[in-house]
Amino acid sequence: MQGVLGAALAQVLRLGEPPGLVVAGRTDAGVHARGQVCHLDCPAEAWRTVPGRSSAPPEQALVHRLRGVLPDDVRVRRVGVAPDGFDARFSASWRRYAYRVCDHSAGAPPLRRHDVLAVTSPQLDVEAMNRACASLSGLHDFAAFCKRRDQASGATTVRTLLEYSWSRLPSEDGDLLVARVVADAFCHSMVRALVGGALAVGTGHRPPAWLAEVLRGRSRDPRITVVAPRGLVLEEVGYPPDAELAARAHQARAVRRP
Amino acid sequence: MQGVLGAALAQVLRLGEPPGLVVAGRTDAGVHARGQVCHLDCPAEAWRTVPGRSSAPPEQALVHRLRGVLPDDVRVRRVGVAPDGFDARFSASWRRYAYRVCDHSAGAPPLRRHDVLAVTSPQLDVEAMNRACASLSGLHDFAAFCKRRDQASGATTVRTLLEYSWSRLPSEDGDLLVARVVADAFCHSMVRALVGGALAVGTGHRPPAWLAEVLRGRSRDPRITVVAPRGLVLEEVGYPPDAELAARAHQARAVRRP
Repeated sequence: MQGVLGAALAQVLRLGEPPGLVVAGRTDAGVHARGQVCHLDCPAEAWRTVPGRSSAPPEQALVHRLRGVLPDDVRVRRVGVAPDGFDARFSASWRRYAYRVCDHSAGAPPLRRHDVLAVTSPQLDVEAMNRACASLSGLHDFAAFCKRRDQASGATTVRTLLEYSWSRLPSEDGDLLVARVVADAFCHSMVRALVGGALAVGTGHRPPAWLAEVLRGRSRDPRITVVAPRGLVLEEVGYPPDAELAARAHQARAVRRP
Repeated sequence: MQGVLGAALAQVLRLGEPPGLVVAGRTDAGVHARGQVCHLDCPAEAWRTVPGRSSAPPEQALVHRLRGVLPDDVRVRRVGVAPDGFDARFSASWRRYAYRVCDHSAGAPPLRRHDVLAVTSPQLDVEAMNRACASLSGLHDFAAFCKRRDQASGATTVRTLLEYSWSRLPSEDGDLLVARVVADAFCHSMVRALVGGALAVGTGHRPPAWLAEVLRGRSRDPRITVVAPRGLVLEEVGYPPDAELAARAHQARAVRRP
């Protein structure tokens, strides 16, 4: 996605070469990012002169031009001048992901087959899953749910999990189980490991207390399945008030860079 | 879809050759059918002995087996023994279709790009569209919105349009405009022509009174654009009480078969 967007921006803004893009949440192949945020440094001249209908301000002209250049699986919904100190990645206070699962015996609904994981088990026990997930909230070392190389690189695997809950929600395609996962930041494949852990509880293969036990192990647990990327969507990224953007970025860089 | 489903049923029910399938609504390539209904004649022996977990009744075993055989864009959600006199096509009292449109300047949301049509116009005027569509309700000759060959074949193009309305509905991907179109039955590409007509009003290219004028023309109107199949979904098929199934089928066959 980053490469495609960079090339489209270079073309529309006539930059000569793709600009450096900083994204709020890097996503693995197959993960969706409906709420992605990114920033770039754009020469003032290029911004002032985005080609568009004469009356359109750059914010609108750029959305319109990018629509014509980008493939249909990448859309830019909104563009604006960032406030001072803004860094799409390090200024963020939290990221919210959703993971969608279907436990209907017929499998995933055809129109949702690209963003819903079908599980073969009979109906999942959402109440047991939520008991398990609640035990993970708060500031912890999530190494048990992170790739070994995150630890090996010297980066911290300590994160604050602000929310992790499951709901059975009606949709046009019947009920879907939707996980809501919010944290200050996530390690590599952490959400997909958290979902795999909850599904083991929901199917009855593990008791609700098991997730807290895995967490306490503090190193990558091979009993945890990392589920397919398909069901995962980066839904929203939260930022502090403008005046705190620079300080937040400074603090996050110090903690998370190895 | 019909060919794929027939082959899967032949395999799972060990029928030797694909059974004849009768579907409630035939759909053009690219049209979705979340609420499709179909029937087939199945030998009693094949039904009693659907291979499955020993305790599972045929209704459940067949859903489960078909899931393993069908491609992921065709799912069978429910299977059952039909009541006497049931005909998936001719017993139906009504069909409900939805058509989804996005008028955001960024284009169709990536996760909905397969079932939403993006229009390039600025925001559509839903109120004007609804005034235009209301004028089409009731029993009319819809030849203006049907393919010429429907008329040429001698089949009637008289239908009862029970509802045609548009709503701007919130979704995870921002607002979508959703048409709700209900009729006793539809001619070939009729819904897509009705949608094309409403969009011409919504963009301001035609006044609300124009759709009624087109209808009165009573022959295929070249000013009407037949929109892309992508946004169209057969959502639901309605049937009368069991005791009336056979009579309804008899009546519909008499009226609609040339």
